[in-house]
Amino acid sequence: MNNSPKEYDSTKILLKVSNVISSPLNLKKICELVLRESQRALGADHASLFLTDDNHKHLILEQARGFTKDEIGNIKLLGSWEVINLQLVKRQKPLIVNNVNSNFLFKGKRLPFSREKLPVSSFIAAPLVKEREVIGVLIVSNKKGSRHIFKKEDMRLIMALSNHVAIALLNAKLYQDLRELFISTIKSLVRAVDAKDPYTGGHSERVMKYSIAIGKAMRLDDVRLENLGLSSLLHDVGKIGIEEELLSKPLKLSSREEKQMMLHPSIGVKIVETIKDAQKIILGIKEHHERFDGKGYPCRLKGNAISLEGRIIAVADTFDALTTDRPYRNGHSKNKAFLEIRRASHKQFDPSVIRAFIISYAKQPDIWNV
Amino acid sequence: MNNSPKEYDSTKILLKVSNVISSPLNLKKICELVLRESQRALGADHASLFLTDDNHKHLILEQARGFTKDEIGNIKLLGSWEVINLQLVKRQKPLIVNNVNSNFLFKGKRLPFSREKLPVSSFIAAPLVKEREVIGVLIVSNKKGSRHIFKKEDMRLIMALSNHVAIALLNAKLYQDLRELFISTIKSLVRAVDAKDPYTGGHSERVMKYSIAIGKAMRLDDVRLENLGLSSLLHDVGKIGIEEELLSKPLKLSSREEKQMMLHPSIGVKIVETIKDAQKIILGIKEHHERFDGKGYPCRLKGNAISLEGRIIAVADTFDALTTDRPYRNGHSKNKAFLEIRRASHKQFDPSVIRAFIISYAKQPDIWNV
Repeated sequence: MNNSPKEYDSTKILLKVSNVISSPLNLKKICELVLRESQRALGADHASLFLTDDNHKHLILEQARGFTKDEIGNIKLLGSWEVINLQLVKRQKPLIVNNVNSNFLFKGKRLPFSREKLPVSSFIAAPLVKEREVIGVLIVSNKKGSRHIFKKEDMRLIMALSNHVAIALLNAKLYQDLRELFISTIKSLVRAVDAKDPYTGGHSERVMKYSIAIGKAMRLDDVRLENLGLSSLLHDVGKIGIEEELLSKPLKLSSREEKQMMLHPSIGVKIVETIKDAQKIILGIKEHHERFDGKGYPCRLKGNAISLEGRIIAVADTFDALTTDRPYRNGHSKNKAFLEIRRASHKQFDPSVIRAFIISYAKQPDIWNV
Repeated sequence: MNNSPKEYDSTKILLKVSNVISSPLNLKKICELVLRESQRALGADHASLFLTDDNHKHLILEQARGFTKDEIGNIKLLGSWEVINLQLVKRQKPLIVNNVNSNFLFKGKRLPFSREKLPVSSFIAAPLVKEREVIGVLIVSNKKGSRHIFKKEDMRLIMALSNHVAIALLNAKLYQDLRELFISTIKSLVRAVDAKDPYTGGHSERVMKYSIAIGKAMRLDDVRLENLGLSSLLHDVGKIGIEEELLSKPLKLSSREEKQMMLHPSIGVKIVETIKDAQKIILGIKEHHERFDGKGYPCRLKGNAISLEGRIIAVADTFDALTTDRPYRNGHSKNKAFLEIRRASHKQFDPSVIRAFIISYAKQPDIWNV
C-alpha cells in the first residue's frame, strides 16, 4: 500500500474507527472519533455531524468540532440550507464545494448565516444512509494547506466514515428501541400492580425517578443506574401477593395485618428471582424497608450491610410515601417531607445517601416537583 | 493507493464487511461474509470461525466454508488443539504456520485429526478479542497458488476482519442479553399474575410457547414472531384487574360473574396500551376470545376481521385450557384436546391457523408435550 507522507492511510483510519464502534451504547464516543479523524485526515478546520429528525426532513446538529462557541450557533443553521438538503438528503449524493462564493450551486442563493460570523469557504459532505434512508450528514469544512482543495480521495474516506456512523446509529437505535420497549412494558405492568392499591397510583414510577436522581448525585455508573432503575421500579412488585382488602384498608392496620404487609419485599424477591441476572436488581427490592440503624425489616440489616440500592430506594420510597395521601392521613408538603427525611439521617437512612438526596433536591427541583 | 492486480484492496474488503454489519441481529450473515471474503482475499481453500464457550476455555466451531461434509466433522477438532489454544486464546497472538509438518510448534505434538482426513498443510489464524478477552478465533487454511505461503499482509487483513467479527459479536450479545432480560422479566411478572389464579400456574408461558409454534408453522417473520410472543405472554394480563375470589372460584361462574370475567381482555388492553409500540401486541390481547364465526367477545368480530395474532392465541389458549385442570373439571388428554380443537375449525377457530396447529402438533410433539 502506498504510504507516502502526504496521503493518509485510509485502512488505518477505518480500523481505528471500527475498533471504537465496540458498543451500541457508545454513540457519543463514535461521533467524537469520526469527527476528529475526518477533520485530521482531510486536513480541515472543522467537522460536523447532523442527524435528521424523526420526519427525516430537518437536519439537526448532533456534534461539531473546530468551531468557536459563537460559530456553533451559526453552524446549526447549515442544516436548514436548501442546497445541502436537496443534494444530500433528497438525492442521497455527496457534495464537494471548493469555493462557496463562486460555486454555481449557490449563485443567487441566500446562505443561512452571515459570512463574517462563520467563515466556511469550502466543504465536503456525505449523507449517512441507513436502509436507503438518509439519517444524517457528515460535513468537513475549510481545507487547510497550500492548495485548499477537497479531492476525490477525500470523498472516498468521508463516505467510508459516514458508513460507519450510519451503522453505529442503526445499532444504537435498535438497542435503544428494545430498551424503551422493555422499560415501558415493565412500567405498564407495575402500574397495574400499583392500581390494586388505590392510594399509590404512580408510586413505583416516582420512586424510580427519585432513586435515579439520588444515584446520579452519587455518581453511579450507567450500568448500575440502569439496574437501580429497574430495581426501584419493581420494589413493590411483591404487593401483587398481598390481599387487595389489606392494600385498600382505610384504617391503620392491625399488628397481624401489618405482619402480612411486611411480607411484600420477600414476595417481590420470589417473583423476580427467576429473572436472568436477577442478582443485580433483587437486593433493592429485598432491602428497601431495612433501616440504617438496623431496626428495619425483613432482616434487620444495619449500615453498609444493606445494599446501596436498598439504602437509596428507602429514601426515595419514604419521600413519595410522605408526599402522597395515605388511607389514614393526607400527604405532607414537599419541604416538610424533605426536612423529616433529613432529620432521619443516621437513624432510618444512610447519611451518604441523604447527602446525595439533599444535593439533588437543591439542584433539580423539577425532579422532586418542588 | 497501490492497486496492483496481485494485491487485494483491503479498504474495499473492510468496507464491504462493515456495510453488512448493519444490524446486531445479523450475526450469521456477518460470519458468512467474513469467511467468504477472507478465504477469497487470501486465496485459500478454507476459512473457519470458532467461538469460545461461556467459560472461555473451549473453541466451538461456529461456521466454516470450503470443507467437504466429512471434513467438517474433523475441523471441529481443530478447536481443541493445544497449540491454537495457547497461542491464540491464552497469549491473544495471531499465528502463521506455512508448513504444519515441519513447523517447530508441532514437533512431537499429536494433531487432533488424522492428516488424510483433513488435509490442512498451512494456515493463518487470528484471535477475536472483545474487551481484552478472546471470544473466538478466525482461521484461514491452505493457501493456493504458486508459492503457498501466508504473508504479513494476509495477517493484517485477517486481523482487521477479526476485529469486525468481534465487534459484531459484542453488539449481538448486548442486544441478546437485553432481550433475554426483557423476556425473563415479563415472564416473572406474568407468573405472578398467573399465581393469583391457582388453576392456571404457568398458563401464560405455555400459551406463548404454543403460539410461537403455530406462528412458525405459518412462516411468520422474526419481527412478527417476537410481537406474537410478547402478545401471547401478556394475553391474560388483564386478570390482574379481576377479583381474586372470582379467579379461584371452584364452581361454575354465575352469569354476572362471567360478565365480569369477560372484561379481562379489555382490562389487558388498558394495561398495555401505555407501552411504546403497543399496537403490535395489543390486538392479540384484545381479540384472543373472539371466535372465527363471530360469536366471541368482546367485539363479536368475525373471520379475518380478527387479527392473526388473536386467531393464533385463541387456539393456543384453548389447547392449554383443555389440557390443564380447571375448578370445575379435570384436564383432557392432549390427543382429546387436539381432536376437539380440530373439530372447532371454521366455528371457533380459523381453518388456516388450525392447519398450522396440526402441522406443528405432528412435527414437534415435544413442544405440545404429547
